[in-house]
Amino acid sequence: MIAFAGSPLDRADHLRMDSDALAAKMNLSARLLKLDGIAPVVSPDGQLEWGTLADAPMEAELVFLGLDGERACFAAVPPEGAQGPAYAMPAIWQAMARLGAQDLAIYGGARSLVDWHARHRYCARCGARTRLAKGGWQRNCDSCSAEHFPRTDPVTIMLVEHEDRLLLGRQPRFPPRSYSALAGFVEPGETIEEAVAREVLEEAGVKVREVSYIASQPWPFPSQLMIGCYAVAEDDALTIDETELEDARWFSRADVAAAFNDPHNDANAFTVPPRQAIANHLIRWWLER
Amino acid sequence: MIAFAGSPLDRADHLRMDSDALAAKMNLSARLLKLDGIAPVVSPDGQLEWGTLADAPMEAELVFLGLDGERACFAAVPPEGAQGPAYAMPAIWQAMARLGAQDLAIYGGARSLVDWHARHRYCARCGARTRLAKGGWQRNCDSCSAEHFPRTDPVTIMLVEHEDRLLLGRQPRFPPRSYSALAGFVEPGETIEEAVAREVLEEAGVKVREVSYIASQPWPFPSQLMIGCYAVAEDDALTIDETELEDARWFSRADVAAAFNDPHNDANAFTVPPRQAIANHLIRWWLER
Repeated sequence: MIAFAGSPLDRADHLRMDSDALAAKMNLSARLLKLDGIAPVVSPDGQLEWGTLADAPMEAELVFLGLDGERACFAAVPPEGAQGPAYAMPAIWQAMARLGAQDLAIYGGARSLVDWHARHRYCARCGARTRLAKGGWQRNCDSCSAEHFPRTDPVTIMLVEHEDRLLLGRQPRFPPRSYSALAGFVEPGETIEEAVAREVLEEAGVKVREVSYIASQPWPFPSQLMIGCYAVAEDDALTIDETELEDARWFSRADVAAAFNDPHNDANAFTVPPRQAIANHLIRWWLER
Repeated sequence: MIAFAGSPLDRADHLRMDSDALAAKMNLSARLLKLDGIAPVVSPDGQLEWGTLADAPMEAELVFLGLDGERACFAAVPPEGAQGPAYAMPAIWQAMARLGAQDLAIYGGARSLVDWHARHRYCARCGARTRLAKGGWQRNCDSCSAEHFPRTDPVTIMLVEHEDRLLLGRQPRFPPRSYSALAGFVEPGETIEEAVAREVLEEAGVKVREVSYIASQPWPFPSQLMIGCYAVAEDDALTIDETELEDARWFSRADVAAAFNDPHNDANAFTVPPRQAIANHLIRWWLER
């Protein structure tokens, strides 16, 4: 299972459009996801903590996450001026590591949404304040009538192979010895396959062919759709873009197997990305196929 | 070839980051894409028309589209208050139909970018005016230091099959008798596969399994990444969401073949989407496999 996927909530799209029906669901049985800013609040037994709507601050904007059976689930947008925690904050990763797969998916989706609202209180078209609409799946500007929607940014992340070796790179912010798949945003005006080829050429100077899709993942830091692909390199000469990568190398199948099978062995060629990252899933897919 | 893909321009990412190098490219040989608002300007022989940077209005923000050999290519953001043409404006489609594949891709990418700038002149975080940065691949807010990036919204578009019949639907805005693949935005917190399953269930009441990826397309109205998929329906009972679809039906292989082979025959079960749409490509893929 891919981390952050598999939410058990029913998004109940029809309720977003029907403000009366949604209001009727904001009753005593409705649940409010407890958040510390946008960090998860995890119970001693490793579950997301929930309260009731009465726990939300009086003026808070509420986002409708979906239905858990008949019960509607919400999260509150942090108040203006609250700082979101940094992506790499260890406490967040420790809390997430204690969650089951379904709770992790609920948290990830909620985090992306409330964080989007917190960073989009004004209209990008005219600068006026906007207000939450459609259960938090939209913001409306009463000044210029613009409608704004939560972002999901597609990112390609790719395994590149050359003669049974895998191209992995490391950014300066990675933990020591950690290498992962190259990745980059899909830009306006290109296909997934074109984005893969461009990123690999930009970052490593390698031309690829035969780009294929493997798997995808919602990544809530802040709200990416990771699109995992595989491609074959035309040759193995590397020209590394040092503004993006600290290093990139070809790893043999034995290198990759050792990194998975004995992860704490400092004699390995590298360490793999954490299991929550789709890169871990992709590299394992390559090893096992 | 998928329409709007295959731009011949080199995006030259490194120039975006280097304002001196980019400024040096804004010379007499640089080209400015001629636009009528955000509509294409097409020469009598069916090519995009280009001018020089001197043709841009004095105060215009310029977006760096990429390099054509050594020459840098730009497009100007329409002035504030200019209305973008509607998506379905026939004059745009007539102009686009006259363009070759590479020009269509250049126009599509440029359109998405300049339209994004035109609709994002203010900071969504604090409401202050923003300014174009990094050759138009970013906007910066000097008031709160937020950085904003052009949007690319991932949309799943899917062929659903049940016992050699294809599920296609029509929205009220479609031309008469036109049916196409169901589609919907990927939301925060879900994979591509989850988005496909959710959309088909919401719009047609059908459960699917075995979702697979087929192809993708940049769609510049305003800036979607269309992610074409195929899925198998568990059964063929339909419950149509009439807020989304006017109709949805199962079409036989013979129905689909007739629609492609004799497109102007009113006796056909339906008409296929235009060749610029990835749906056309996907339906043909299904027919030919």
